[in-house]
Amino acid sequence: MSNTQVTLIQIDNYGPWTVTPAPRREVDLQTMQSRLFADLSQHFGMQGGYAFFTRFDNMVAITNGMDLEDHARIQESVRNRYPVTVSFGVGHDERPARALVEATAQLQDEGSAQDEQRTEVLRGQPIEDDERTDSDVQIAHYDVVDATGKYTDELDAFSTFIQIEQGYASLMRHLHDEHGSLAFFVGGDNIIALTSGMDDAAFEETVTYVREDADVELQVGVGHGATAHDAGMAAKHGLETCRERGTHIEGEFC
Amino acid sequence: MSNTQVTLIQIDNYGPWTVTPAPRREVDLQTMQSRLFADLSQHFGMQGGYAFFTRFDNMVAITNGMDLEDHARIQESVRNRYPVTVSFGVGHDERPARALVEATAQLQDEGSAQDEQRTEVLRGQPIEDDERTDSDVQIAHYDVVDATGKYTDELDAFSTFIQIEQGYASLMRHLHDEHGSLAFFVGGDNIIALTSGMDDAAFEETVTYVREDADVELQVGVGHGATAHDAGMAAKHGLETCRERGTHIEGEFC
Amino acid sequence: MSNTQVTLIQIDNYGPWTVTPAPRREVDLQTMQSRLFADLSQHFGMQGGYAFFTRFDNMVAITNGMDLEDHARIQESVRNRYPVTVSFGVGHDERPARALVEATAQLQDEGSAQDEQRTEVLRGQPIEDDERTDSDVQIAHYDVVDATGKYTDELDAFSTFIQIEQGYASLMRHLHDEHGSLAFFVGGDNIIALTSGMDDAAFEETVTYVREDADVELQVGVGHGATAHDAGMAAKHGLETCRERGTHIEGEFC
Amino acid sequence: MSNTQVTLIQIDNYGPWTVTPAPRREVDLQTMQSRLFADLSQHFGMQGGYAFFTRFDNMVAITNGMDLEDHARIQESVRNRYPVTVSFGVGHDERPARALVEATAQLQDEGSAQDEQRTEVLRGQPIEDDERTDSDVQIAHYDVVDATGKYTDELDAFSTFIQIEQGYASLMRHLHDEHGSLAFFVGGDNIIALTSGMDDAAFEETVTYVREDADVELQVGVGHGATAHDAGMAAKHGLETCRERGTHIEGEFC
Repeated sequence: MSNTQVTLIQIDNYGPWTVTPAPRREVDLQTMQSRLFADLSQHFGMQGGYAFFTRFDNMVAITNGMDLEDHARIQESVRNRYPVTVSFGVGHDERPARALVEATAQLQDEGSAQDEQRTEVLRGQPIEDDERTDSDVQIAHYDVVDATGKYTDELDAFSTFIQIEQGYASLMRHLHDEHGSLAFFVGGDNIIALTSGMDDAAFEETVTYVREDADVELQVGVGHGATAHDAGMAAKHGLETCRERGTHIEGEFC
Repeated sequence: MSNTQVTLIQIDNYGPWTVTPAPRREVDLQTMQSRLFADLSQHFGMQGGYAFFTRFDNMVAITNGMDLEDHARIQESVRNRYPVTVSFGVGHDERPARALVEATAQLQDEGSAQDEQRTEVLRGQPIEDDERTDSDVQIAHYDVVDATGKYTDELDAFSTFIQIEQGYASLMRHLHDEHGSLAFFVGGDNIIALTSGMDDAAFEETVTYVREDADVELQVGVGHGATAHDAGMAAKHGLETCRERGTHIEGEFC
Repeated sequence: MSNTQVTLIQIDNYGPWTVTPAPRREVDLQTMQSRLFADLSQHFGMQGGYAFFTRFDNMVAITNGMDLEDHARIQESVRNRYPVTVSFGVGHDERPARALVEATAQLQDEGSAQDEQRTEVLRGQPIEDDERTDSDVQIAHYDVVDATGKYTDELDAFSTFIQIEQGYASLMRHLHDEHGSLAFFVGGDNIIALTSGMDDAAFEETVTYVREDADVELQVGVGHGATAHDAGMAAKHGLETCRERGTHIEGEFC
Repeated sequence: MSNTQVTLIQIDNYGPWTVTPAPRREVDLQTMQSRLFADLSQHFGMQGGYAFFTRFDNMVAITNGMDLEDHARIQESVRNRYPVTVSFGVGHDERPARALVEATAQLQDEGSAQDEQRTEVLRGQPIEDDERTDSDVQIAHYDVVDATGKYTDELDAFSTFIQIEQGYASLMRHLHDEHGSLAFFVGGDNIIALTSGMDDAAFEETVTYVREDADVELQVGVGHGATAHDAGMAAKHGLETCRERGTHIEGEFC
C-alpha cells in the first residue's frame, strides 16, 4: 500500500495583497506567481519531489523523503526573494486525498488563509525515515490519445482547450471522489495523478469514465517508487509504451 | 463593438521534445514552461497586453496595439534564452472566439504543431493603427463570492480546488459556446474573460448559469479599453466594487 | 556629437535589508539580485536600451528613447514582484560620464541610498523626442584577443580571471578619467563601453594603454545609433570584423 | 587546515554560440547568463554550497558535501531549461587556489572550452564523506568601511564603482598570489574570499595591502564550517561585529 506525503503550499494572505493598496497589474501577478511555482518545482524537485501549480495561491507538492527542515529552507528562500511568504502544511496517509486533508488541517488550525498574522506556518508530520519503502508513491501519468492529430492541428486553439479542460475536470473529480486520488493538469494534454493501490482494472475504469463523461480518450502510464520522481519517471515510461503499442494502460501496479 | 486582437503562442514541436531522447524530468519541464509563460506575461504586458498560460504549450495573448515587429522581438528573445522556440499566429475580430480561430488558422496553415520543420512561424494581420478605438477590448474579471470563507478555510485544499475547477470548466465552455468569448483561469478563484458586446443581462445570465450548472457563486467586474491592461484594470475595479457593495455585476458595458 | 541618456538604478535601502533582522543567506541574495538585473535587462532591452549589472545594488542603463513613464512602468513591475523597490535617476549629456553624474545627483538630492524613507525616486530629464538623432549613442565593444586560446584553455580558471579583471580595472578607470566614458564588464572577456566622439586614434590609445598597464591585448568594435541596441549591434559586427581580419579596431567613428 | 572543494562551471562552447549565426542581442545574453547563475546559486545553495558569477561563462562554486551525482542532477536541470549546457570540473585541496587548478585541469583534459564536441563534462574527485570535518571551509567576507557614507552618497555612481572595482582588483590578485585564496566580488561593496588557514595577522596584512595599493579601507569577518553556508554565515556575523565595534577584523581563525 502507498504512503504518500503531501505538502500544501499556501501564499500567505495573498488575495488581499493583490489588491492593496489598489489592484496590482495582472501581468505582474501572473509573472510573480508562475515564477514562484517554477522555483518551488526546482526546490522540491532537487530532492525527488513534485510540485503542482493547482490554483497558484494554493499549490500541492509530493514530498516523500523531505523533513520539516528541508521545508524550512525553502520557506526561507522564498521570503528572501519574493514580496510574499508561504506556509507549508505536511500530511501523509495511504490515500493521497486523506494526506491532503491532513496537510490542509495543519494550516487551517493556525488561522485563515487571509489572516495577516498567520505567516510562514510550518506544521505536520513527515514520514519517519525507517517507515519509508520503495513503493510509497504511486503515480499515474495520463494524456489524451493523439491530442495533436485529433485536436491541436484540427480544431481552433480554444476548442481544443475546452476538450482538454473538460476531460481534466471530469477525471480530477472522479479520481478524488471514487479513488481518493489527486490529479493535476500539468500542461499540454498531460495529467499527473497521485494514486494509491489502484490496479489495472481501476485505471481502466477511469479511462472508461472519462470517455463516457467527457468524450475524451485517455491513456495512462503507471509507476511507483520511493519518491515522486522515481514513480513519475516510471509512469512516463509506461506512457511511452502505450504510444508505441497503441495500448491504453501500461505500468506497474501494486 | 469590440475588436479584439489575439495571438496564439505555440511552443514548436514541444511534445516530442519533452520525451527526446528519453522522457525529461517533470520538474524541469514544469519550471521551463512556467518561466516561459512568466516572461511572455512581462513581454506582452509591457505593451499593454495580457498573456494566459492556458495549456502552457499553447498560450493565448491579447495583443491590441502590438504589430508583427513587436511579436518578432519577443520571438527572438525566447530563442536566445530557452531550449525551445515559439510560433505566433495573430488574428482579430469583433468576437474573441473568432479572432482565435483566425489566429489558429495562421499556424495550422504552416503545418502541424509537431512538425519539426515548422518553427518560429509569425503570421497574421494585426489591427491597423487608424482602426483602433478606446473600447476595442472588453474584459470581464470573475471571482468566486467569499471563496476563502466558504472554501479555502473550510474544505480541504483539493475539495476547494474541485469546486473552483468545476466552476471554471462550466463558465469557459458556456462563454465560448453561447457568447463567443474566451475565459482563462488565472489563479486563486479568478477567471479573466475576453468578451465582446455583452451587457448587464448577458453577464447576469452567465452567473446564473454557473450557479445552476456547477453550484458555484460568481461575481464579475467588467471594463473596456484600448488595450487588455486598460480594460482589465477597469474590470478589477468593478470587482472591488462588487466586494464593497455585495453586488454581483459591476462595470462598464458597451 | 553623442547625446547619451543614462539611468542610475538603485535598490532602495538594500544594504540594511540584507542584514535585517539578521544576515540573509548569501545564495538567496545572489539569486535575487541577479534575477532583478536579468529582468531589468529585458525591460530596458525591449525598448532598445542596455542595462549593466555594475554593483548589482547600483546598476546603470542606457535609456535613449525612454521617457519617465516608461521608467515608472518598470518600477511598478519590480515593486509587484520583488521584496525590494528601486529608484531611478535619469541624466543625459554629450559625455556619458557627465550624464551619470547628473543621474546620480537626481537620487542624492532626495536622500541617502540607505534612507528608508527614500523609496522609488523617479527623477531626471530624458531627452526630448525632437532632439534625438541617429548617432546619439556610441558604443565600443572590447574583448581580449584569443582569450580562450591564451588563457581559458591554458591557465587555471582563476589566473585567467585575474588577467581579465586587471584588464577591465585598467580600461574602466582610464576610459572614465581620460575620455569621459563608462565601461562595463559584461561576462566572458567582454567589456561594453559607452563612449562619445572617440575616433580611431582615441580607441587605439586605449588598447595601447591597457596593453602597457595590464599586459592584456584588446580588440574593439565601435558603432553608433539612436539607441543602445542599434549602436551595440553595430559594435558587435565591428568586433566580428576584427576577428576575421586580425585587426584591433573596426567600426564607425563620429 | 582547510580542505576546500571547488567546482569550475563552464558554459560549453559559449563564445561561438553568442555569435552564431550572427551576434545575438546583448540584453538577451545578459538575461540568460545572469539567470543561469541565479539558478546555480539556488541549486548549489540548497546543499550548503556557494556559487560565484565570476566571468559568467566560467563560474566557481564551493561544493563541500556534494558528490558527482549531485552535480549531474544540476547539469541535467540546466540542459532541460536553457539553450546551453554546462561542464563541471571538481577539485579539492588545502589551498583553495590549488583546488581550482585541479578543477580546471579536469575540464582542460577533455578539450577546449570552445570545442563543440566537449559538452557536459563531469569529472573530478569530491572529498570522501569520512574525510570531511567541521572546519573544511574558511570564508572571509570583506566590505568597504562606510561605503555608503563615503562613496555612494558622495561621489557619482561610476566614481564610486571605480573605487570598489580597484579595491577588488587589488585584493583578488593579492589574496591569490600571496595566500592561495580566491576572492569574488558579490555586489555592493562586498567581497567573499575562500581562504585557508589564515590567521588574524594575515587578514590584517590584506587590509593594509589594499589600503596602500588601492586606497580603499576594508573590514572583514571570518568564519569556518563544514560547508560554504556555515562558514559564510559565521563570516557575515563577524562583519556585523566589525560594524558594531568599529573594528577591522572579527571572526574565527584556524
